[in-house]
Amino acid sequence: MHEQEISKAKVLIEALPYIKTFRGKTVVIKYGGAAMTDPKLKPQVMQDIVLMKYVGMKPVLVHGGGPEITKAMQALGKQPVFVDGRRVTDLETMQITEMVLVGKLNQEIVALLNGQGGEAVGLSGKDGNLITARKLMAGAADLGFVGEVTAIKPDVINTLDRDQFIPVIAPIGRDDEGNTYNINADDVAAAVAIALNADKLVLLTDVPGILSNPQDPGSLLSTLRVRDIADMVARGVITGGMQPKVRACERALNGGVGKTHIIDGRIPHALLLEIFTDQGIGTEMVV
Amino acid sequence: MHEQEISKAKVLIEALPYIKTFRGKTVVIKYGGAAMTDPKLKPQVMQDIVLMKYVGMKPVLVHGGGPEITKAMQALGKQPVFVDGRRVTDLETMQITEMVLVGKLNQEIVALLNGQGGEAVGLSGKDGNLITARKLMAGAADLGFVGEVTAIKPDVINTLDRDQFIPVIAPIGRDDEGNTYNINADDVAAAVAIALNADKLVLLTDVPGILSNPQDPGSLLSTLRVRDIADMVARGVITGGMQPKVRACERALNGGVGKTHIIDGRIPHALLLEIFTDQGIGTEMVV
Amino acid sequence: MHEQEISKAKVLIEALPYIKTFRGKTVVIKYGGAAMTDPKLKPQVMQDIVLMKYVGMKPVLVHGGGPEITKAMQALGKQPVFVDGRRVTDLETMQITEMVLVGKLNQEIVALLNGQGGEAVGLSGKDGNLITARKLMAGAADLGFVGEVTAIKPDVINTLDRDQFIPVIAPIGRDDEGNTYNINADDVAAAVAIALNADKLVLLTDVPGILSNPQDPGSLLSTLRVRDIADMVARGVITGGMQPKVRACERALNGGVGKTHIIDGRIPHALLLEIFTDQGIGTEMVV
Amino acid sequence: MHEQEISKAKVLIEALPYIKTFRGKTVVIKYGGAAMTDPKLKPQVMQDIVLMKYVGMKPVLVHGGGPEITKAMQALGKQPVFVDGRRVTDLETMQITEMVLVGKLNQEIVALLNGQGGEAVGLSGKDGNLITARKLMAGAADLGFVGEVTAIKPDVINTLDRDQFIPVIAPIGRDDEGNTYNINADDVAAAVAIALNADKLVLLTDVPGILSNPQDPGSLLSTLRVRDIADMVARGVITGGMQPKVRACERALNGGVGKTHIIDGRIPHALLLEIFTDQGIGTEMVV
Amino acid sequence: MHEQEISKAKVLIEALPYIKTFRGKTVVIKYGGAAMTDPKLKPQVMQDIVLMKYVGMKPVLVHGGGPEITKAMQALGKQPVFVDGRRVTDLETMQITEMVLVGKLNQEIVALLNGQGGEAVGLSGKDGNLITARKLMAGAADLGFVGEVTAIKPDVINTLDRDQFIPVIAPIGRDDEGNTYNINADDVAAAVAIALNADKLVLLTDVPGILSNPQDPGSLLSTLRVRDIADMVARGVITGGMQPKVRACERALNGGVGKTHIIDGRIPHALLLEIFTDQGIGTEMVV
Amino acid sequence: MHEQEISKAKVLIEALPYIKTFRGKTVVIKYGGAAMTDPKLKPQVMQDIVLMKYVGMKPVLVHGGGPEITKAMQALGKQPVFVDGRRVTDLETMQITEMVLVGKLNQEIVALLNGQGGEAVGLSGKDGNLITARKLMAGAADLGFVGEVTAIKPDVINTLDRDQFIPVIAPIGRDDEGNTYNINADDVAAAVAIALNADKLVLLTDVPGILSNPQDPGSLLSTLRVRDIADMVARGVITGGMQPKVRACERALNGGVGKTHIIDGRIPHALLLEIFTDQGIGTEMVV
Repeated sequence: MHEQEISKAKVLIEALPYIKTFRGKTVVIKYGGAAMTDPKLKPQVMQDIVLMKYVGMKPVLVHGGGPEITKAMQALGKQPVFVDGRRVTDLETMQITEMVLVGKLNQEIVALLNGQGGEAVGLSGKDGNLITARKLMAGAADLGFVGEVTAIKPDVINTLDRDQFIPVIAPIGRDDEGNTYNINADDVAAAVAIALNADKLVLLTDVPGILSNPQDPGSLLSTLRVRDIADMVARGVITGGMQPKVRACERALNGGVGKTHIIDGRIPHALLLEIFTDQGIGTEMVV
Repeated sequence: MHEQEISKAKVLIEALPYIKTFRGKTVVIKYGGAAMTDPKLKPQVMQDIVLMKYVGMKPVLVHGGGPEITKAMQALGKQPVFVDGRRVTDLETMQITEMVLVGKLNQEIVALLNGQGGEAVGLSGKDGNLITARKLMAGAADLGFVGEVTAIKPDVINTLDRDQFIPVIAPIGRDDEGNTYNINADDVAAAVAIALNADKLVLLTDVPGILSNPQDPGSLLSTLRVRDIADMVARGVITGGMQPKVRACERALNGGVGKTHIIDGRIPHALLLEIFTDQGIGTEMVV
Repeated sequence: MHEQEISKAKVLIEALPYIKTFRGKTVVIKYGGAAMTDPKLKPQVMQDIVLMKYVGMKPVLVHGGGPEITKAMQALGKQPVFVDGRRVTDLETMQITEMVLVGKLNQEIVALLNGQGGEAVGLSGKDGNLITARKLMAGAADLGFVGEVTAIKPDVINTLDRDQFIPVIAPIGRDDEGNTYNINADDVAAAVAIALNADKLVLLTDVPGILSNPQDPGSLLSTLRVRDIADMVARGVITGGMQPKVRACERALNGGVGKTHIIDGRIPHALLLEIFTDQGIGTEMVV
Repeated sequence: MHEQEISKAKVLIEALPYIKTFRGKTVVIKYGGAAMTDPKLKPQVMQDIVLMKYVGMKPVLVHGGGPEITKAMQALGKQPVFVDGRRVTDLETMQITEMVLVGKLNQEIVALLNGQGGEAVGLSGKDGNLITARKLMAGAADLGFVGEVTAIKPDVINTLDRDQFIPVIAPIGRDDEGNTYNINADDVAAAVAIALNADKLVLLTDVPGILSNPQDPGSLLSTLRVRDIADMVARGVITGGMQPKVRACERALNGGVGKTHIIDGRIPHALLLEIFTDQGIGTEMVV
Repeated sequence: MHEQEISKAKVLIEALPYIKTFRGKTVVIKYGGAAMTDPKLKPQVMQDIVLMKYVGMKPVLVHGGGPEITKAMQALGKQPVFVDGRRVTDLETMQITEMVLVGKLNQEIVALLNGQGGEAVGLSGKDGNLITARKLMAGAADLGFVGEVTAIKPDVINTLDRDQFIPVIAPIGRDDEGNTYNINADDVAAAVAIALNADKLVLLTDVPGILSNPQDPGSLLSTLRVRDIADMVARGVITGGMQPKVRACERALNGGVGKTHIIDGRIPHALLLEIFTDQGIGTEMVV
Repeated sequence: MHEQEISKAKVLIEALPYIKTFRGKTVVIKYGGAAMTDPKLKPQVMQDIVLMKYVGMKPVLVHGGGPEITKAMQALGKQPVFVDGRRVTDLETMQITEMVLVGKLNQEIVALLNGQGGEAVGLSGKDGNLITARKLMAGAADLGFVGEVTAIKPDVINTLDRDQFIPVIAPIGRDDEGNTYNINADDVAAAVAIALNADKLVLLTDVPGILSNPQDPGSLLSTLRVRDIADMVARGVITGGMQPKVRACERALNGGVGKTHIIDGRIPHALLLEIFTDQGIGTEMVV
């Protein structure tokens, strides 16, 4: 009698030390990849975040939106062009991007969190002047309205957070001339984490973490030191799409964020596993 | 010497009694019509609102978005259908509507206010569960995702307002099953004004106000009593598009809002004129 | 891989609705019986209470102490005398009782809670004038310093609770002449629950709850209405030691406490099961 | 239609950047000269100060009182004696001075401010031990109860200011033996500005400001650097009654006050012109 | 050894119950008569008030000023005229009165309190719009600027009191046309006591209290009930100058003030005796 | 008439400067010796402490308990063993000690303070993790559960103190393994005084203070400098039981406590004499 229930109670009790540890801590989560597109994973991530909030943590979400933007462009008869993995963004593309990020994906996440009992509030970088940006100068190509963060004004996040809301941020920035920019969500997450003096930055990705042998999924590095990054890039261990994520983590750590994590968003409840188990999952980067 | 400057100082001094009167007062503004589309009027409205904020008032904006939604639909190859002035809104139309309202127009207003020195924060009815809605049952036709307000949860507005932000609200609501609805912005403004126990509700329109003779622009009624509405509708004085606005005002007044105003948004600085002059402009409705 | 961890995460997620429901709620717990003497159960109860605190609830403990008092008396060469289940309490017995309750058991519970990561503070009814009492007049026998509650001054509990401490109360009261009284812990718990306007009163006992057939452990009543008590006492369903507990619950409910529960403290993590499962355990009494 | 009103609205909008800039800023105003005696100017200065308060600034007034004191002395049959522009102040003169400053002029200003919608509170240096003073030792002559500031205890100003009152200060101080002193109002204003860490000190005078050629009213210096003062005094540019004013400004700037202004109180709304126009009026002194 | 000191300690201990009783209580004191003119009594009253403040009470002073006003008038060659004990107050007399009350007597009291370690702040009825008054219509004679209270706006007292200042009030009021009035200080004290919801109103007088036989100082009534006043006036027991004082007390009691006291200010430390001894002194009036 | 009362009022007035000086000051009092056992002295000490609280000071008590522990041990048939004045404390002795200190003496003091109108709350070092301790290593002998302070966590004291409660502390500590220790009360008082950044530490003893000639009670040193201690110990002036008290004071002074006092608790109202007279009593130690 009650056997099964009692074993559930024990799981709650096992979580107690983690709840104590993370009480009041700010965790910035870059939400993207499969966790954002897989209909089974989506509500699970939302549950994880609402639970984090309810046990006293302060989660802040930053989301990306790649595939949806492409879809919307195609519906409007525009063909996306990419240079070095970055979308060339003319004014019309920027307008579509903003509508999709702020008017569709951001609202969808807000609705999902609220559906799980949270009280989320969507923000773009324009709200409360949250993100000031400038045109990204990267190589020869003119990428148009692709931007990079120049300043974070975290007042609106702090205001909302103080009152139990979960901020959900679309990676849109604005410069002083009034131009709107699309910014890499990993970079926004890192900048927000620094501005909030966050305890953790977690990037949800579609890989297990950083592998010492990219070909061997069993070679996951559970910890990585910042000072080893240069060498690992040189040796071709950290490659391609992983490089900007590692660089974002490095920036966050240098900016005072306690720890950063690159974790596999394809695992159910990846966030809870990262927070509420000893070994964690994915790769933790530290100074 | 200084003649011109001194006369400016006198204007400021003339505003003093109004500043005193409206200090700390909540004013909900339905923003729409020419004031939202005319490139000369737009920044003026924003200046007015930022000034209201700076002299101690608490402005809250609710905006509509009709023409932009139609444009976006057409760009995507969809033909809008209207029944009794209401857009038939299938799921795809709803998604377009949300993207345009939340991802384009709302952000544009936020950016304009911030450009004038305000600190605006855009909100849809999903943010902080601000607007709960249900399907509007109006006559025989199924209008799809056209909704009406069932509840306002003003916590997120109050939180932001306490910290000097200007809330800007897109008229989107959500029901408990997770459906999204497009709602008439006048109705949202009235419901928000009631929930905030606002002192004033101001509807910016493209007419001078309510005319005792609809054919004669000189027949503007400066004041209208709620008890006279039924008769004026019967006599054909209040017609067509003006009826729902008058009804929204009536609901707001019955819900405890101090005063409501239907003013001509085509006049430069119409809001300031309404607030900072004795005679005001447009038609004031009172109980 | 991660299978076991993921299933743990799911248990946490299952608890989410309960965490939401009980956030900020005050729960007064009468701690006694096996849960207080069994060395395996003791730490589990403490974990449950600390977890309740960490997920935002406000637990308040009231404990009894019967067997330890008897032991201490015997060590000092005094023979306990009981009349109708109540200990005849002369001045020396009262002094021993106070030392055991306040100086031993209360401190033991405080230490156990702190050992689990809580911040408990022990209180007797004298601290901050928490419990005013008077001599209990019950039948012919003079029971000496056995008392009943005349007033609760909850200031010290509220002060401590506001700052994250868990109050642990020994059932000692004082009258205006300075006499100290030993009071039934169930009664103290009920009085404290009323004074705090608690949402729940939970009595930990050594029985499964109230049985419709006292001989049949399978006849547990999961719910009991106050209006049915008199009849059940008359029919001999509620007997002996259960009667005062049921009466304490009745008083609490009449005094405005939301719900009361008589649960089986011998079940591991009985408190968590009661709070975090749908069916709960034991018998719930409602108005 | 509305033409005139709209142009007024534009003036308000022009003031917006200044309102933003000075929000929450403390401005100490030395009130004296024509602005204090001319019946047309008096209400204008009061309007300016009330407006400053209403748009979020924190004005603090310090007033002088020369001519009124002389008048009162003469009414009582006493002949004023001046040495180097300072009134020889025996005990009786001091009592008359205090009555006129605190009981007449200060109350008159308070009443005028309140008449314009402010909530002013009159203070002498004795109230809340605001001003501690000592006998001024200046040259050979014994000036009696002419004093200089030794300490400002700004608690009472801060208390009142926090609650929307406008403090109005009479330049009376007290030493530890209980003697009362009359103090130069410019010096009190400078000392108060330092103690409040004010953003601005404004001296209302009866001259246009500092002239590079004292004979030519057109030679007004709009800005003066502290380091140039010594030379200008040496060259006879800053002379006579202007010297102590310039010295007071210098002390304020050295004490941490942001900016100081010597402006022409004879110009209508001189304070608003100084605050709400780009070029300002009079002479601004900076470090 | 220490004998004398120990007996002093015992006196402090005897005061403890009174300190407890009056902690946080507001006591409005009308200060006048010998206590205000006798150089030996003056510092004692101030000590009493500062002590009251330091042991947690909230004393508020209202003072009169009769003899000083007459003296000042005579110095200026004006002859006072009295009708029924009230000074006929033309404009010049009013100006002299205000200067003497606000600029001399009020400041003297402030300085005395501060000299004893208090932090007093002088207020007239103009400060913070504390006292609104109107012309007193009393009989046939036109008394000029003799006024009566129409409203008390206690904000400035509450603001100062919250921060440990002792408010000292001169009985000057102002009407909406800007006229200044001299008001009876007993009446101001009663009105302030009502507005502050004071626990006590104490009138310091030059008589022992109310005598049942006006000829016999030994016939002091220690308590008087409001319902007995009319009869005592009729019987000639309460006569002349005592009548307005008794009426002021009656009004205060009807306005919600807890108790009122008419005490003999000629007794050293009369206030402490009234507050800190069982029998009190003078006559206590109750409802 | 009133002569005696007036002389009492004068005593209150004499206390005024001391009340002013000690307002808001934290005073930690080690309560022990005759003041804790003499039935006449006990209520006097309590009165003194309650008075201190009522005039705005923040008293914190730490008590010892020697004789009572011995009595309880003997009642249970155990014979106390002392080594160098310290009780050898096996587990059973520790349990008895805790019961006596926390369950008897502490509660007795709380009740006495409350009886005098205070609101005391008893605390052991376990409450709120107030005192962390470790086994005292002192010489060759194993003293068992005799401990020394390793850390004070003053949160619970600060929480209670903020709300007008008087904390009363039993000198019991706990280590991380869950062992309970009996700690010297002078040492606990010094450690608590340091942790609270107290203004004063007062040790109530059964001697007049420190004597320059231990044989001559008239040789009391009213002041002692820390730098002179070593020499006085060497010369045999500070001997035996006084040495640990002097060392505790020295530690407190080095830890930032303003002043420490060793006073004669046998003198009635010794605490008030120390606080409220110029010369004080006993020996004051300063840096």
